[in-house]
Amino acid sequence: MSMTLPATETVRWGIVGPGSIAHRFADQLLHSRTGRLTAVASRSAERARAFAGEYADAAIANATIADAATAGIRTYGSYAELFADPEVDAVYIATVHTEHVRNAIDAAHAGKHIVCEKPLAVNQAGVYAVIDAARAAGVYLAEGYMYRFHPQTATLVGLVRDGAIGELQHVDASFTYAAQLPAEHRLMNPALAGGGILDVGGYPVSAARLLAGAAVGEPFADPVSFAGRGTVGATGVDEWASASLAFRSGITVHVTCGTTVDIGSRIVLYGSAGRITVADPWLPSPTDGSRIGIARVGGADTSIEVAAAYQYALQADALAENMAAGQSPRMSWADSVGNARVLDQWRRAIGLHYPSE
Amino acid sequence: MSMTLPATETVRWGIVGPGSIAHRFADQLLHSRTGRLTAVASRSAERARAFAGEYADAAIANATIADAATAGIRTYGSYAELFADPEVDAVYIATVHTEHVRNAIDAAHAGKHIVCEKPLAVNQAGVYAVIDAARAAGVYLAEGYMYRFHPQTATLVGLVRDGAIGELQHVDASFTYAAQLPAEHRLMNPALAGGGILDVGGYPVSAARLLAGAAVGEPFADPVSFAGRGTVGATGVDEWASASLAFRSGITVHVTCGTTVDIGSRIVLYGSAGRITVADPWLPSPTDGSRIGIARVGGADTSIEVAAAYQYALQADALAENMAAGQSPRMSWADSVGNARVLDQWRRAIGLHYPSE
Repeated sequence: MSMTLPATETVRWGIVGPGSIAHRFADQLLHSRTGRLTAVASRSAERARAFAGEYADAAIANATIADAATAGIRTYGSYAELFADPEVDAVYIATVHTEHVRNAIDAAHAGKHIVCEKPLAVNQAGVYAVIDAARAAGVYLAEGYMYRFHPQTATLVGLVRDGAIGELQHVDASFTYAAQLPAEHRLMNPALAGGGILDVGGYPVSAARLLAGAAVGEPFADPVSFAGRGTVGATGVDEWASASLAFRSGITVHVTCGTTVDIGSRIVLYGSAGRITVADPWLPSPTDGSRIGIARVGGADTSIEVAAAYQYALQADALAENMAAGQSPRMSWADSVGNARVLDQWRRAIGLHYPSE
Repeated sequence: MSMTLPATETVRWGIVGPGSIAHRFADQLLHSRTGRLTAVASRSAERARAFAGEYADAAIANATIADAATAGIRTYGSYAELFADPEVDAVYIATVHTEHVRNAIDAAHAGKHIVCEKPLAVNQAGVYAVIDAARAAGVYLAEGYMYRFHPQTATLVGLVRDGAIGELQHVDASFTYAAQLPAEHRLMNPALAGGGILDVGGYPVSAARLLAGAAVGEPFADPVSFAGRGTVGATGVDEWASASLAFRSGITVHVTCGTTVDIGSRIVLYGSAGRITVADPWLPSPTDGSRIGIARVGGADTSIEVAAAYQYALQADALAENMAAGQSPRMSWADSVGNARVLDQWRRAIGLHYPSE
């Protein structure tokens, strides 16, 4: 595992697409060991300036400078300008799904290291295209599954590897919410690759692949069988879906995602000697510790407390640590390829194709 | 479906093996439309008399007769005597697992109709033997899965058949408890076919087979693939186990059972359009209504209230209604055969064989 530190101690980050996820990243970047917010780009220069203004005070400690430019966060009204800025080392791409491939390839061509919001691309072909560009450019690239960098996830993987519940038999994982989304919202729009599978379905799928891999001593595993069901709503995107996966090892998985039906978000592992439950696997509080519950044969129910962590900051630090390798062992290129294949299968199973495909 | 009523309005029941389950049956038989407790047999005549005494008052309304014999409940110190009693129409067999086959065959030979506690036999071969005896004798025989006769189960089957959550994708079912059982307890004793799979594992398996059947318009379905894991404890019986099943229709199932690890007892169904949750599938309160929760795409979360019911009484009434057919469509012979096969597979998967096998 490469843990090469960057030549410079500080990684200067540019945010591309200052929406709500970009806020999460920027908020936590303040807690990064290596990263500093340096630039923001939006198709609207005004929106970029407003975003930068929010972080201006933080950018210069103890200052009361409201103007982003003088606070040192540069703002751009186009992504191309940010990619051309030699003072930007890495970019966090938080645009709409359908722009990720283009943005990431442009960033790679400009020599920027990249963390790109999930899904890295709308389908597996797009993932390959982005990886090719990153490899050719010699830059770091990681799909933004930030939960992979939280110590809760590492603890969970360790429990499976160490046989805390014996041999893993089954994984039940979900990420669901019930939103009142207007029909014109990007998540309801097939032209913008809306729907739950691409928005949140990738979480349970990626976690299941991670844990099925951990059970056999690999960084991840890919399923040998897949069956999916779901509801494509009135606007033409999936609002609810579930799927059953099986792995060569015999491990089975059931995953669920939804944007209009909330059945909670969790990971439950069943092994030969008990069960592990992660109540908050994707977005554990950055300030309170989280808990992994273990019910085991021959022992009282226990739980492991995991220290609170800023997972977006750790994701940024992983870029600093793994620049030379081009990818993080916690969220590798091959892992993204395998995840995209499953999401493609899931959409195909329920008859969901996007106009761009 | 045969709904033939018996020639006599009353079915006179004899209980064989007056333990805790027999109490449940006897308690609820007071609410049966057709059944009346007439006799009790134990290998201990004293134990039989004590049991009968508990029901003596109820047997003669408004009476205060403490003596079971004068209250009309006959007691026997051997099962053979009860089987020989011409005043007994039907027997409820509630002996230990390993005695079921012998007791049920003896009862059939004596011409008694039979409800036998689950498992009908320790393995599939035993189930065939009991069915052969019942068929030859022309008596009714049903394995005592009483939950099959509760309206909650019928409602659940109806929801699946009617596509309330679209096409069924996955069933998650469990029956677990954490008991502090002494090593000499029958449930810990391999010689008495102890362990969780035979004690409670049959519930989730039978429910999953029922629901996978309902999804394709059949009374039940049998899985085409099976993989199980579990822990065989110090006394040589399973204390915890889980299994993954797949059906020809593509429906997948995960079942869990345990005697020393409590992860709850429930049925959860995932379909193409939502989820159904049954919080108390096996032993819903006989006096309070129960609830089936439904989370469905395009609708608010709802729940269906099911009227309270005495499921053991309904199980007894089903015998009265289906005597001519020899079996109930709600718990048929073929269904018991299929269930036993899965339980055999489950035990084999975790290396659990009984000394008698």
